[in-house]
Amino acid sequence: MYLEKIKGPDDVKALSEESLPALCDEIRRAVIDSSAAVGGHVGSNLAVVELTVALHRVFDSPTDKIIFDVSHQCYAHKMLTGRADAFLDPRAYEDVSGFTNPGESAHDHFAVGHTSTAAGLACGLAKARDLAGADYNVVAVIGDGSLSGGLEFEGLDWAAEQGGGMIFVVNDNEWSIAPDAGGIYRNLAELRATGGACRDNYFRSLGLDYRYLEDGHDMVALESALAELRGCGRPTVLHVHTQKGHGYAPAEADPEGWHHVGPFDAASGEKRRCAAPHALDEEERDYAQLTGGFLLRRMAADRRVVAVSAATPYIMGFGPERREAAGDQFVDVGIAEGHAVTYASALAKAGARPVLGIYGTFLQRAFDQLMHDMALNDAPVTLLVFGCSVFGTSDATHLGFFDIPMLGCVPGLTYLAPTCAEEYLSMLDWSLSRDVEKGAGPVAIRVPAAALVNRPSFRPLADYSDPSLDVVRRPEGARAAILALGDFYCLGEDAAREASRLGSEVVLVNPRRANKVPVEELAALADGGVELFVTLEDGCADGGFGERVAAALAGRAGARVVTLGLPKAFLDRHDADEVLREQGLTPQAIARLIHSGLSD
Amino acid sequence: MYLEKIKGPDDVKALSEESLPALCDEIRRAVIDSSAAVGGHVGSNLAVVELTVALHRVFDSPTDKIIFDVSHQCYAHKMLTGRADAFLDPRAYEDVSGFTNPGESAHDHFAVGHTSTAAGLACGLAKARDLAGADYNVVAVIGDGSLSGGLEFEGLDWAAEQGGGMIFVVNDNEWSIAPDAGGIYRNLAELRATGGACRDNYFRSLGLDYRYLEDGHDMVALESALAELRGCGRPTVLHVHTQKGHGYAPAEADPEGWHHVGPFDAASGEKRRCAAPHALDEEERDYAQLTGGFLLRRMAADRRVVAVSAATPYIMGFGPERREAAGDQFVDVGIAEGHAVTYASALAKAGARPVLGIYGTFLQRAFDQLMHDMALNDAPVTLLVFGCSVFGTSDATHLGFFDIPMLGCVPGLTYLAPTCAEEYLSMLDWSLSRDVEKGAGPVAIRVPAAALVNRPSFRPLADYSDPSLDVVRRPEGARAAILALGDFYCLGEDAAREASRLGSEVVLVNPRRANKVPVEELAALADGGVELFVTLEDGCADGGFGERVAAALAGRAGARVVTLGLPKAFLDRHDADEVLREQGLTPQAIARLIHSGLSD
Repeated sequence: MYLEKIKGPDDVKALSEESLPALCDEIRRAVIDSSAAVGGHVGSNLAVVELTVALHRVFDSPTDKIIFDVSHQCYAHKMLTGRADAFLDPRAYEDVSGFTNPGESAHDHFAVGHTSTAAGLACGLAKARDLAGADYNVVAVIGDGSLSGGLEFEGLDWAAEQGGGMIFVVNDNEWSIAPDAGGIYRNLAELRATGGACRDNYFRSLGLDYRYLEDGHDMVALESALAELRGCGRPTVLHVHTQKGHGYAPAEADPEGWHHVGPFDAASGEKRRCAAPHALDEEERDYAQLTGGFLLRRMAADRRVVAVSAATPYIMGFGPERREAAGDQFVDVGIAEGHAVTYASALAKAGARPVLGIYGTFLQRAFDQLMHDMALNDAPVTLLVFGCSVFGTSDATHLGFFDIPMLGCVPGLTYLAPTCAEEYLSMLDWSLSRDVEKGAGPVAIRVPAAALVNRPSFRPLADYSDPSLDVVRRPEGARAAILALGDFYCLGEDAAREASRLGSEVVLVNPRRANKVPVEELAALADGGVELFVTLEDGCADGGFGERVAAALAGRAGARVVTLGLPKAFLDRHDADEVLREQGLTPQAIARLIHSGLSD
Repeated sequence: MYLEKIKGPDDVKALSEESLPALCDEIRRAVIDSSAAVGGHVGSNLAVVELTVALHRVFDSPTDKIIFDVSHQCYAHKMLTGRADAFLDPRAYEDVSGFTNPGESAHDHFAVGHTSTAAGLACGLAKARDLAGADYNVVAVIGDGSLSGGLEFEGLDWAAEQGGGMIFVVNDNEWSIAPDAGGIYRNLAELRATGGACRDNYFRSLGLDYRYLEDGHDMVALESALAELRGCGRPTVLHVHTQKGHGYAPAEADPEGWHHVGPFDAASGEKRRCAAPHALDEEERDYAQLTGGFLLRRMAADRRVVAVSAATPYIMGFGPERREAAGDQFVDVGIAEGHAVTYASALAKAGARPVLGIYGTFLQRAFDQLMHDMALNDAPVTLLVFGCSVFGTSDATHLGFFDIPMLGCVPGLTYLAPTCAEEYLSMLDWSLSRDVEKGAGPVAIRVPAAALVNRPSFRPLADYSDPSLDVVRRPEGARAAILALGDFYCLGEDAAREASRLGSEVVLVNPRRANKVPVEELAALADGGVELFVTLEDGCADGGFGERVAAALAGRAGARVVTLGLPKAFLDRHDADEVLREQGLTPQAIARLIHSGLSD
């Protein structure tokens, strides 16, 4: 076996051409086996095996700087830079992250998880190199739909202006997460069809040099193409055609379903826990399916309803079947979050009823569009914000902790936090039913990221535009209150029960809204005898919901507020329960806090 | 005179071809005279006079939807849609805003002030039109450097994918605010040079149809070109070559200096208050010159120092002379804020010392890049944040109120708020002098937007990475404290003096840092007898500095906190003093608040 003997790029360079196919097979095997056990980005990593081997044979990493866009396609790179064990030894599967990580290796230059940054990063590295009079190579591997992201355009556009040696390897596997969307991908298709010779070459139009390589799995061709570009003095694109999932039949057959998967059976490709789009009859299963089912019925009844996604349709339950069923009422704009918000804002202003479903971590890419195109224009967009939770993605590159601070300061935005499936649908239904003629503004809903909870006893409102607090329990003589936001409502319930067991009765409140607090209602609680307020939020407490409660009550000498939430930190592959314990977010800890707080 | 008789587009259509040159002259005169009195975007508006007249003769606004990118070039549009008086009658000069404003007219569809949104907005309008089975024209006027913005790329890229009738008029005046930067502009130059016939056409590469018009001031040619596109079924670009400042010699001669100007003498073109880059010897004048002078000296001493701008070099004092003097150590990436942050982050990681100067309102476009490329990667970037103040730009489209909520939740970022010129330079010097080997993270400095203040008595720190509170005054037995952040320090000083006059002694604190508060130091103040804390910040109080103080003290029954700052609202052309009065941000109001608060 070759792979286990490879401690670094020198060992890769030392191998004979003849042994490379075997090495690639071993790498593929390791990608498949490790992903089968712990899940992973199978399709994109299988596509770049030969490319990555060639890169490490031609360039001298880490002196030459190889950076990966999105970086979820870095498995082979990690295997070839001293981290093969993490893919070969089941006990070591969790030792490395799924993205480039400077903390792991000098061969990783940036922690990257959001797309379209490689060109800009390459420009910066090249500029620093040239200022210092150094002469290393800067190589950016771009792919998996990154080209539709405006940031990539900005980087490529600037590369041409700046000049100097930069190599952009465009790994064209014809797929984003979902199918590629955007005119640029038609240009790539035309370039593939013409062997790179067609007129109106996107890369050349920006002023970049361009080469095309048809078979991105031909090791010899890859090595010679890259060797020709080594030391080049101009920003140059090498367009390489690869196959997503190459070498693994199940992944080749279903590129979308195998972009990222949970554990599966390596032999059959049967998925243990289906991460791919569900069937239509599974709405009870999770909020994604609940959303997709609801929206599809709504679309059938109302032509104005349009579901908009930015390359992650599955989070709102729009797998291939529902997309097909929705027809022109479903739009996936591809990886272009800023555009998705601007586009949805215009749809709303022109009389449509757009529902944009997006991960909170990616929504960070559209903050100004939320501010201006949506909020300043009072566009009645419905924004479904997913994955904002300690239970969401645990990679430092994809944390959904910062949505409340980000959305909290957007004027005119109503950011709702449902506590259960019923309340979620009630809020979503209200948002789509509003009379927009009366100047209804944007509404965002923080879709619970924890397991689906049913609470038929929740108290619906006819109008959520400025919701009152839902005081669910108000025991006689209670001197403490828990304001439990969104999917932490259950935690609040348990904590209240626990506190009561300790002898401290607690008022239990579902705040309903994340970005604003009704000052008078809080004051009324204080007037009613509540001395201690504890806020619970499944997000960064710094700049979050609790601080707004604290500010609202800060003028009263009598009232104390303790704000509990997630830390302002880039936790990496955290254990949710451990984080909750550390932050005092367990029923027992909260109950003790209240009980001792009242005994002061 | 024609202009004063024009009440709407029908009147423009009714005019004979022969009378149009006179109409255009009148529009130019009105642009110049009104701007001479109150300031305005002279250059870009003079460039689109004929184009705008042609648009309103060919299309039926508001049924046909004409939208302007950035929209600061909408003066002629406003004059032709019932708002000519606001440009002809000095008493009415302030009646309309300098940007499209749906509140003013049905002919304005969006409030727009940040660039690169028009293509995406057009896609949304067209999609809503097609869903509704309507058939109006959607026309987006794109220009003034907007094409380098990634959001514009995302919109154009999507337009090609979506298809359907959309007309993109690319108003190519060869300038952004500063000279155009980016490969795309070389493509435009090549298209101009070849009459639109060159081989690699950026717009065609995305799948858009394309036409070229060489003389953007030829009314007949403009009308016939636009008439041919009316009702077109495909997204089509009309590339129109115009001259920035056309028809006004001073503006033609200095496109950068006349992009936006304050009041000037119409006859001579002499500026009353110079808004263009200052001479090198005026560092005392304002923070822009102070910054430019400091950085230029620093660059001369250290090759690693690089100033980075995103099309607004003048805010950091880099007019043509200093840009020339800085050579390759000054970089203007053009209108591409996301790229500017990603680029600066890579520069910093690769050993350079980037200083990115940017308006807070535009920094909103780079939130995710701040989060990931900069903060997650612990990149020692120095960020200079300008214009964040009630005294900054007063247009709803350019408010700098939301920087503290936005930057407040970025992990690992140190956001400093200097109170005077000396403290600003002390913080900037420290940030550039840090030993980055020891893992120094990003630093942002909130550059005061009010007039330059000297306070030689300020107390510098050797290390601002986690600064203590600067307790400037601590009178015996004081029961109240004012925490006066950044450029509101002077307000705090005056308020403390006023409160003392009322008989309430006040502790005066310069917090130094905007996004974090030292809990123990605040507790110590409370232990020392302070019952009432008043926070002052020149930014949105919701999610801001004061709420962090409130949260830090919320656990103490004894301590009360009142957070004063700017409202969470899109104020439009506000009067700063009026806003301050409304928010209780006057020395008298603050003093009364404290005095009565202590008497409770």
